[in-house]
Amino acid sequence: VRIGILGTGIVGRTLGVGLRGAGHDVLIGTRDVAHTLARTDRDAMGNPPYAEWQQSNPGFELVPFAEAGAHAELVVNATAGEHSLEAIGAVGDANLAGKVLVDVANPLDFSHGMPPMLSVANTDSLGEQIQRTFPDARVVKTLNTMNAYVMIDPSHLPGRHNVFLAGDDAAAKGTVGDLLGELGWPAEAIVDLGGIRSARGLEMFLPFWLSLLMSMGTGAFNIAVVRAATA
Amino acid sequence: VRIGILGTGIVGRTLGVGLRGAGHDVLIGTRDVAHTLARTDRDAMGNPPYAEWQQSNPGFELVPFAEAGAHAELVVNATAGEHSLEAIGAVGDANLAGKVLVDVANPLDFSHGMPPMLSVANTDSLGEQIQRTFPDARVVKTLNTMNAYVMIDPSHLPGRHNVFLAGDDAAAKGTVGDLLGELGWPAEAIVDLGGIRSARGLEMFLPFWLSLLMSMGTGAFNIAVVRAATA
Repeated sequence: VRIGILGTGIVGRTLGVGLRGAGHDVLIGTRDVAHTLARTDRDAMGNPPYAEWQQSNPGFELVPFAEAGAHAELVVNATAGEHSLEAIGAVGDANLAGKVLVDVANPLDFSHGMPPMLSVANTDSLGEQIQRTFPDARVVKTLNTMNAYVMIDPSHLPGRHNVFLAGDDAAAKGTVGDLLGELGWPAEAIVDLGGIRSARGLEMFLPFWLSLLMSMGTGAFNIAVVRAATA
Repeated sequence: VRIGILGTGIVGRTLGVGLRGAGHDVLIGTRDVAHTLARTDRDAMGNPPYAEWQQSNPGFELVPFAEAGAHAELVVNATAGEHSLEAIGAVGDANLAGKVLVDVANPLDFSHGMPPMLSVANTDSLGEQIQRTFPDARVVKTLNTMNAYVMIDPSHLPGRHNVFLAGDDAAAKGTVGDLLGELGWPAEAIVDLGGIRSARGLEMFLPFWLSLLMSMGTGAFNIAVVRAATA
């Protein structure tokens, strides 16, 4: 599958490695290629700038958002939540029409310091905003509830743990479920939470996730839903 | 320990059974005893009215909030979130001073239909509101992330799963951890998320929890935090 990943941060890069490793044809999209390649700063978590990363991960082509979208049969939004609507807008409606848009972003607002707030919560979600703004895209919210390394390597954590789907298009969720399977997620670990409205719960999980991150001192964790045994 | 439980709904009743079963001296508090005993309606989940429940669970004394507080060495807020500040206010500052106040409530707002919204989220939480409003109480947020039956019988679910603590008073969290142990929670299942501010994440988990409830058709579940194995 030809995949366009929007976003050059650690999530976009890591998903790029995972999806390319699964045999897909991946382009990474950014707002301004020259600007992204010129950056020399590390991010808040100490990750290297994109150009440095690309040297140790050759073969990833960095292109403008619209080109990534034109290339793609499936688009992944891995931009920072505050920029997501603008980034997807730059892809352009024609490049989104009918395509699956996998939204892994979180609407984090760092303007009030750490830990971040959500810029939208409770009565709306970024996933819903994206679906409303780009009605011809088939939006599936998933993977936003975990660290990027866990996204592409669930077997890094012991035992069963879960990934969640929210979206209005059942066939799109099926496509995303297949992709998750290729990344190593067993079918029984994938929980369909229904329509895109359930993106609210998935995004509102972030403050809890951040508390867990701070209390454990590592992002190498995930949650498992534990059910009563059935007869 | 003498415990006063505020709230006569399924959470208060179930915690009453669990804490009494653990050997504690439990009173259940309500706003208006006569009014509560006169109710004949079932709740939205089909649970029987309090008077009917009391017939099959004899020995629980129902008293006004202030009397439950005067009796208590430890107070449990199991009221509906929209009534919690008023209920705790009725207990009275003198009956709260220096006591551990276990807050298991969620600030659910059903006024916009189902599923409920939160009446406070993101920039504040009910747990923080309670601590601010009653500064002499030692508030510990816990147990709000699960069904009442799981609260008092964690072994009902297979394997390891977690309960979380948030509060500014370390000794109070220790006391609550001991109580959780008596209800069957292993020490390693109890995760301290830090100060009462972490109540935000615990309460904002509710929309996700409600999505899980709806997708699975049962509240008999909990979440487990799965970590990478350490050497």
